Amino acid sequence: MNANAPQIQANAPQIQEDGLVTSPKGFSAGATYAGIKTYAQDKMDVGVLLSARPCSAAGVYTTNKFVSPSVTLTRENVAAGGVRGAFVTSGIANAGVGEQGMIDARECLDLAARRVGVEPAQLAIGTTGVIGVELPMALIRSAMPEVSVSADANGGSAFARAIMTTDRGPKSAAVTFRCGQGTASIGGCVKGSGMIHPNMATMLAFLTTDAAVDAAFLDAALRDCADDTFNMVTIDGDTSTNDMVLLLANGAAENQEIRAGSPDAEAFTAALRALCSHLSRQLVRDAEGSAKIFSARVEGALSRSDARLAARAIAASSLVKSAIHGNDPNWGRVVCAAGYSGAELDVSKVSFFINDVAIMEAGVPIPFHRESVIAIMSRDEVSLTVKLGLGEHEATAWGCELTEEYVQFNSAYTT
Amino acid sequence: MNANAPQIQANAPQIQEDGLVTSPKGFSAGATYAGIKTYAQDKMDVGVLLSARPCSAAGVYTTNKFVSPSVTLTRENVAAGGVRGAFVTSGIANAGVGEQGMIDARECLDLAARRVGVEPAQLAIGTTGVIGVELPMALIRSAMPEVSVSADANGGSAFARAIMTTDRGPKSAAVTFRCGQGTASIGGCVKGSGMIHPNMATMLAFLTTDAAVDAAFLDAALRDCADDTFNMVTIDGDTSTNDMVLLLANGAAENQEIRAGSPDAEAFTAALRALCSHLSRQLVRDAEGSAKIFSARVEGALSRSDARLAARAIAASSLVKSAIHGNDPNWGRVVCAAGYSGAELDVSKVSFFINDVAIMEAGVPIPFHRESVIAIMSRDEVSLTVKLGLGEHEATAWGCELTEEYVQFNSAYTT
Repeated sequence: MNANAPQIQANAPQIQEDGLVTSPKGFSAGATYAGIKTYAQDKMDVGVLLSARPCSAAGVYTTNKFVSPSVTLTRENVAAGGVRGAFVTSGIANAGVGEQGMIDARECLDLAARRVGVEPAQLAIGTTGVIGVELPMALIRSAMPEVSVSADANGGSAFARAIMTTDRGPKSAAVTFRCGQGTASIGGCVKGSGMIHPNMATMLAFLTTDAAVDAAFLDAALRDCADDTFNMVTIDGDTSTNDMVLLLANGAAENQEIRAGSPDAEAFTAALRALCSHLSRQLVRDAEGSAKIFSARVEGALSRSDARLAARAIAASSLVKSAIHGNDPNWGRVVCAAGYSGAELDVSKVSFFINDVAIMEAGVPIPFHRESVIAIMSRDEVSLTVKLGLGEHEATAWGCELTEEYVQFNSAYTT
Repeated sequence: MNANAPQIQANAPQIQEDGLVTSPKGFSAGATYAGIKTYAQDKMDVGVLLSARPCSAAGVYTTNKFVSPSVTLTRENVAAGGVRGAFVTSGIANAGVGEQGMIDARECLDLAARRVGVEPAQLAIGTTGVIGVELPMALIRSAMPEVSVSADANGGSAFARAIMTTDRGPKSAAVTFRCGQGTASIGGCVKGSGMIHPNMATMLAFLTTDAAVDAAFLDAALRDCADDTFNMVTIDGDTSTNDMVLLLANGAAENQEIRAGSPDAEAFTAALRALCSHLSRQLVRDAEGSAKIFSARVEGALSRSDARLAARAIAASSLVKSAIHGNDPNWGRVVCAAGYSGAELDVSKVSFFINDVAIMEAGVPIPFHRESVIAIMSRDEVSLTVKLGLGEHEATAWGCELTEEYVQFNSAYTT
């Protein structure tokens, strides 16, 4: 991060691509290699994140009813208040193992809490990996003394590695925003979504901020931003047993607590949204077998919910994904997906654009130069825009191409 | 059909695999090649189906809001009563062409009605093929005099070919059931679903019966059977602009009209369900790039709606489809799909079976012989059963494997 760069603008948050979960003041983290995942240089599979001060905490969790006890326990601890850190492990999901799952999740928090000197109820737990296999507690027990948390880049970087499964690399970032007379930061790391790396079953995001934020407002802001970002990333429509986004606010920036309607509320939400959006796109770009991503933008919807429904349906369509893979300007599939999404739609008002090229207007295809559009679609990021012409609401979802490699990877995983 | 075979059992309807849409008495059909599709031996692309007598008619239509005017016009004519036949054409969907779509649909019915001597409002229209291209009316006008309807197998067989697009072959069948003192028949033909052959955008089914059936009961029976069969066939989750199932009942069997609660109502519904189920499985088996199909059966659901939701989610999951392709007993994906389906689910009560082999019981995986299960999964039809353990309701959905060829086919279609 270059302190001289003009990054502190409430209306245009600048992402720091080298930012980490430890970029905000008062957070430390660390990780080690316990032997749960196959060994490689720099591989980590057990980690801890901790705030030096008490936090407000908020979480967004999978809605899958086949849920990991790790999510259930985190939800309980966050709801009870007082969470100021997290234990993570990767390689095994701790899902589909019966009652042992909750027993092991609790022991993980006991071990981690003892190691860093807090109460178990002050920690969240994120687990990710293979479903149906019990956590290797012996490995975790013997590895825990090796975990040391530090507030420097090494700590934040190690923690980001400790949540990876089939991710190609760690994904972290931070953002700074004007807050009162000074500034505050939000940092975070994320791992490949269960939808992208299905056997690994999980999208995990850990977000930290040194702003002081009222818990109720923190929860509302996180839900709102997640709905626009993480929840709009769709790879194949499958949501997992372990998905979780955790946000901790420790007030180390010494600002006046941000609440709904307070002067810095808007800047905070804008910064959080920018960070979540950046991390979401990193997720999509890291999808297995995928070299191309696309945005599905819906404008002119009757409601925000309609806009999101239609954008998600387009981004989730296997046919649209295949068309993106083949550089095929197949507008029929895109409009058809909007049509079955459940969003209100009047065919005679629908327009469709690939990047800025109009492909359909008022429900009728218009002539376009096929070769130019194919050339546009050959870029590694394609933008699809559907204008419904019914209202003022809009939403953007992100998807990646569907490739032969996706099928190969996912048909051969456990055998 | 062998008249000596014991096919006439109300409780076990026997499918006649060589049955046709003209098997029931009083129906004739015919088709010709107009030049809309590329030429090949036996290819047909314009056809007409007609009952010699007035009919009760019922239809089930796509819920996609981006709907073809052909569906809209059919829906109007069926609702007005008096429909006794249908015009079909394949190669062009008549969708996404603005107002011209309705003008052309009306002209098709004018041409067909004049040819067979009925009113245009007495016909339905089914179109299927490429979206965004206007119907080639000049070809249709000049082909119409070539269409002659006949009640023999040639007519029914030609009609089944006239609705094909990328289908590997025509798909027809019939069933006979005890009705009053005699018997009655239901026949039908179907074309590859839009979900299977997405650019062709359509699942079309035309069903005929010589039973006399009250229109309200006919409608209820068709909806119920379609929900359990055609609506449980899911290939990639995309529903199309042109999907339609039409059922005509002409009373040529001279039975006492079947109504809700009348003695033959149950036998009629059982026969209709058996036929729709058979045709649905033929649809799945014909999916592009797919050699394997699987059933996703859900038992013990709290409601019928829950059972259908969960079964469909499993059959629609790209991850489950990839696992089927790879003979991978990846039960986590199956239970995970049930978990996000929206159906009520208690992890600790879920059991899962591949064919008859128990893979998971009461939420915990149980040891199974991996090589045997992989061998079972290598068959060309695999059965997945999830028992929710919550209630008495059940449903079965059908899916096909996701293959590298699917991606190749669908990424290269229009370019």
